[in-house]
Amino acid sequence: MIKVGIVGATGYTGSELVRLLYNHPEVDIRIITSESRKGELFSDVHPHFQGLADHELQPAHKILEEDLDAVFLALPHGVSMSFVEKYTGADFRVIDLSGDFRLSAPDVYESWYAKAHTFPKGFEQAVYGLPELHREEIRRSRLVANPGCYPTSAILGLAPLVRANMIIPGQIVVDSKSGVTGAGVKAKPTTHYSNVSDNFKAYSLKHHRHTIEIEEQLSELSSNEALQVQFTPHLLPVDRGILSTIYTQPREGVTENQLKALYAAFYKEHPFVRLRKNPPALKDVRGSNFCDLFVTYDERTNRIITVSVIDNLVKGAAGQAMQNMNLMFGLEETTGFTAVPLNP
Amino acid sequence: MIKVGIVGATGYTGSELVRLLYNHPEVDIRIITSESRKGELFSDVHPHFQGLADHELQPAHKILEEDLDAVFLALPHGVSMSFVEKYTGADFRVIDLSGDFRLSAPDVYESWYAKAHTFPKGFEQAVYGLPELHREEIRRSRLVANPGCYPTSAILGLAPLVRANMIIPGQIVVDSKSGVTGAGVKAKPTTHYSNVSDNFKAYSLKHHRHTIEIEEQLSELSSNEALQVQFTPHLLPVDRGILSTIYTQPREGVTENQLKALYAAFYKEHPFVRLRKNPPALKDVRGSNFCDLFVTYDERTNRIITVSVIDNLVKGAAGQAMQNMNLMFGLEETTGFTAVPLNP
Amino acid sequence: MIKVGIVGATGYTGSELVRLLYNHPEVDIRIITSESRKGELFSDVHPHFQGLADHELQPAHKILEEDLDAVFLALPHGVSMSFVEKYTGADFRVIDLSGDFRLSAPDVYESWYAKAHTFPKGFEQAVYGLPELHREEIRRSRLVANPGCYPTSAILGLAPLVRANMIIPGQIVVDSKSGVTGAGVKAKPTTHYSNVSDNFKAYSLKHHRHTIEIEEQLSELSSNEALQVQFTPHLLPVDRGILSTIYTQPREGVTENQLKALYAAFYKEHPFVRLRKNPPALKDVRGSNFCDLFVTYDERTNRIITVSVIDNLVKGAAGQAMQNMNLMFGLEETTGFTAVPLNP
Amino acid sequence: MIKVGIVGATGYTGSELVRLLYNHPEVDIRIITSESRKGELFSDVHPHFQGLADHELQPAHKILEEDLDAVFLALPHGVSMSFVEKYTGADFRVIDLSGDFRLSAPDVYESWYAKAHTFPKGFEQAVYGLPELHREEIRRSRLVANPGCYPTSAILGLAPLVRANMIIPGQIVVDSKSGVTGAGVKAKPTTHYSNVSDNFKAYSLKHHRHTIEIEEQLSELSSNEALQVQFTPHLLPVDRGILSTIYTQPREGVTENQLKALYAAFYKEHPFVRLRKNPPALKDVRGSNFCDLFVTYDERTNRIITVSVIDNLVKGAAGQAMQNMNLMFGLEETTGFTAVPLNP
Repeated sequence: MIKVGIVGATGYTGSELVRLLYNHPEVDIRIITSESRKGELFSDVHPHFQGLADHELQPAHKILEEDLDAVFLALPHGVSMSFVEKYTGADFRVIDLSGDFRLSAPDVYESWYAKAHTFPKGFEQAVYGLPELHREEIRRSRLVANPGCYPTSAILGLAPLVRANMIIPGQIVVDSKSGVTGAGVKAKPTTHYSNVSDNFKAYSLKHHRHTIEIEEQLSELSSNEALQVQFTPHLLPVDRGILSTIYTQPREGVTENQLKALYAAFYKEHPFVRLRKNPPALKDVRGSNFCDLFVTYDERTNRIITVSVIDNLVKGAAGQAMQNMNLMFGLEETTGFTAVPLNP
Repeated sequence: MIKVGIVGATGYTGSELVRLLYNHPEVDIRIITSESRKGELFSDVHPHFQGLADHELQPAHKILEEDLDAVFLALPHGVSMSFVEKYTGADFRVIDLSGDFRLSAPDVYESWYAKAHTFPKGFEQAVYGLPELHREEIRRSRLVANPGCYPTSAILGLAPLVRANMIIPGQIVVDSKSGVTGAGVKAKPTTHYSNVSDNFKAYSLKHHRHTIEIEEQLSELSSNEALQVQFTPHLLPVDRGILSTIYTQPREGVTENQLKALYAAFYKEHPFVRLRKNPPALKDVRGSNFCDLFVTYDERTNRIITVSVIDNLVKGAAGQAMQNMNLMFGLEETTGFTAVPLNP
Repeated sequence: MIKVGIVGATGYTGSELVRLLYNHPEVDIRIITSESRKGELFSDVHPHFQGLADHELQPAHKILEEDLDAVFLALPHGVSMSFVEKYTGADFRVIDLSGDFRLSAPDVYESWYAKAHTFPKGFEQAVYGLPELHREEIRRSRLVANPGCYPTSAILGLAPLVRANMIIPGQIVVDSKSGVTGAGVKAKPTTHYSNVSDNFKAYSLKHHRHTIEIEEQLSELSSNEALQVQFTPHLLPVDRGILSTIYTQPREGVTENQLKALYAAFYKEHPFVRLRKNPPALKDVRGSNFCDLFVTYDERTNRIITVSVIDNLVKGAAGQAMQNMNLMFGLEETTGFTAVPLNP
Repeated sequence: MIKVGIVGATGYTGSELVRLLYNHPEVDIRIITSESRKGELFSDVHPHFQGLADHELQPAHKILEEDLDAVFLALPHGVSMSFVEKYTGADFRVIDLSGDFRLSAPDVYESWYAKAHTFPKGFEQAVYGLPELHREEIRRSRLVANPGCYPTSAILGLAPLVRANMIIPGQIVVDSKSGVTGAGVKAKPTTHYSNVSDNFKAYSLKHHRHTIEIEEQLSELSSNEALQVQFTPHLLPVDRGILSTIYTQPREGVTENQLKALYAAFYKEHPFVRLRKNPPALKDVRGSNFCDLFVTYDERTNRIITVSVIDNLVKGAAGQAMQNMNLMFGLEETTGFTAVPLNP
């Protein structure tokens, strides 16, 4: 059994981690922490867990007193880095769900997150936890930087095209639409019901932090030119899910069949990516760790369109974290994933 | 392994059965049927099952050619009865999710369903499949009439009060609110998005078919007087879930503590009923087989209020059916139920 | 022209007042106040008013410097009373949308609102602003206490039965379901999108403040016995609207036709109450000042069921306030109401 | 008074026309037709109009027996053309809300609508009813082809850039998201509540009919090169509204201020287009005839992003039709438009 601790119980990623790990046959959740709600039960904070996960919430410092194999950090960016620092040298592996170690270097972080990074050394050790690109490094890693939700959706949609050097690197538009849980559990005007329901809007045009995460990962895949992405996030009146509509231009002629074959080959060994005959919808993956992809070529305009959907809390966060844990502990990538998508 | 067939693949209960049975360690889904979509894959009809359940859909008559232990009928009322008749004497057990055999007798059926019953003999054999009331009979049964969604919610909320003979039998109001999946998968004006979204209404006042199902089950529980229920269903702009607000009047004085103790005793051995400290919400049980109950006493008005929530597709249909199957095959009632409620 | 001031611009009732008064041919909105956003434009706070209502928000004390005929108080209860006190003796009439002067006396207020009342003298002057019950008093009033949203829906549904002395006063159940705007504009966990969307729950069982408001108004209508209401509010995943399902018991035999005739007679002179042939839905009144009623008799159970729908922000707040203003200034009750319900 | 007839009462555009025309001071709705519901009242079909529009529905042939000034055709494409033909030479003006006469020529229609056009002569007479581009022609027209909803949103977002010859004509991506009412009133799987709610998907990739409508109108505005648009529609879980996110590339350097000035100059005389400081949301225009636009320049990527929102049933259909009627009858463009956006 993998003895697991979860730091940060009150947010959606913390709650999702428990939902998924609960059904994992090789996991024992030993400790869940929360500073703001310590002493209460996990099921007081999330009543749907009553009778399933009634752990008493502990202060975070108790993590170091437990005998653990893996610790998940379900904390906001800027907060997570100090925990990663504190856990350096600990016996357990760390999977950090924040944005603190996803980028290539502290200065890139500081320029896009507008915040000083207090543990630059962490970057040397951290592996970007997208199994479809970095499976082997993840297996050997002791610190995984779990990818952002938008980047997971965008990178999986673009990776086959970029690695095959098939598209013009300056002509990439990623138009993404996300459910509200991506904005976190905290009540604020942007997540107020009546501001979201029956509504829709774009936000963070031009400078969303996930832009650089997408660009760095894709540039690494690309053999030659620097690559630039026009990324626009939108807020959907749904709980879960990200759909990205991705527009690219082929360097030269391509056919629909070539595209299908390219994607099929790229994802052959990756059980959580499903190639779809028709454009997928959010509910096709809700609650599951799948990323469903559809790709097509528009001859009229000479443009490739890729549609990518994930559940932002699962493949975009907690599910990918459990997938990474499986790899880090030598298990099958799919171990413990029981949930068929919940649709409707 | 229990070899299972599912008749009726295109509706929501068919799809939910596959979702739940997929994770059951003792079940092998051998055949799924559909007349209208036969020859297609189950995952063509429900694309979120791609890679998970790609069974080719069969015509229903193939059921009798398979070596099966259990057959689930996920068919509309009025259609199911002829299948039950056809399967009389077959080697497999039958769990019927329609309303065709839930009532006490053909004439009651005919008066509330306004339709002739073509297999009255089935009533002799059928057991009402609410495990919290009829567990032992279900274990021995070869034909289970799986309860309606509203009745499951209402009966579980009222059963402790009725069996204890605590309430006035003519003063029971059940005000129920259901998600749209209860109206089925078929597109019709009442389920058109813009008629439901941001909207709410009552329907079938005074004469909904589930009224008699609730009354019959409760009257059976009650030792003396005939019992009458004022039942009003409403249509919520949500996919899944039923919440029933139940108003009753105690025959004589009662305290909050007596009520809590009564419910606790009644449901002590029933793992899918959770007694809650605060009024539950639909999402607390979404996707799961739980029925969450809250009961309180209003001293000012001398009335008892019980709030009951279920997922209409799970505890109100497919989950209860799998729970019944577990009982019929000597398994633990909870076997194969992995899904923690999906919230949010 | 009626020169109008609105105190409290940031909430939903403030915003609705401007929406409705904007189209009123006899109204000039002279001043809108907000302490927290003063100096900004009304359309900065509510961008959908850009180009329509670009008033610079003023501090509240400016009200007394303007030449005004009517002032609307769109403030929370507990805050409003001090403004009413301050405006005693002013030349303008006051319409208070809070709960501060709706009840019969300060001690009733203090017991249900759990808060001291600092201006008890206000109760002498205040008229309960439900035009369908108090039209003449409203015409003569200088201080109108605009009714609560739930009470408007419940009282209009019950008034004909109560005034006709037709029902048993101890057997009244009001099961109400409200949209989220009733909980106000402020972001808090209960109005967080993912806590509301695809969800549903009961709240404030047994002791919601609107209970006493309903009971007092109905008792006044009733010639003899004290009257008690079992009131349960629920939170719907919709923006606007209240639907109340009201259960009562006739003292003696009654027919469907008698009920229809009773309601028709009662509301003959009231243009905003519509009697419906079928149960109404929330969207049938959305954005409008209508209260749609449906009444029916269940012979089987000897119970009357009344279904009542309003838009909580219009007939339940700002629209009713404008209706009251019309009466106070000798206008036709319907003057300025242009909006047909927005459906879908 | 303008004596008006409406052909096609059961759909959303028919209902919206009545909602808007009801408040128009110069309009008298003389006749509303429906073949399928003739003999019933308009308010039987749309109960929210009870007491407001209780017209008895007439068969369409009655149109020619009335003394009318204007006829609105609220019919599906393919059906409308035969009515236009029939009304040739009639005394009234015609505003056709279908797609039958929006394109430049019958062969273009036939290639994109995959359907023969039975009244090609109509194209000679029809004027494309987008007042912001064709105001003068509309004033003189006897047959207006009211624009599609997506094209209204896309063209208004792009027109200033195209007319100024500022952008590269082969690099235009229009990623649009529409509410469900755009798919019509008819119940079908794509508009079934549970297929839409909490869901999101792209559809009609590469070949949606509105693509050519956008391209033709913009090409007309453009002085030189042929212009091509990559248009992708998506289905939002909302009733009303279209938001288009539009990506273009400037031919040469441009600044944020130049863009703002360009849009301000272009729309100076157009009261229904509002230029916004921040990206607009659907509810900012819900129920109103506004098109809200936001434009910005991304220096990093050298791309212009324009966000455009409309209510698809108002500025995208019935409101624009009334705006066109105003122009055709010499009224102020804004006459009769009372509705402030309904938000929330």
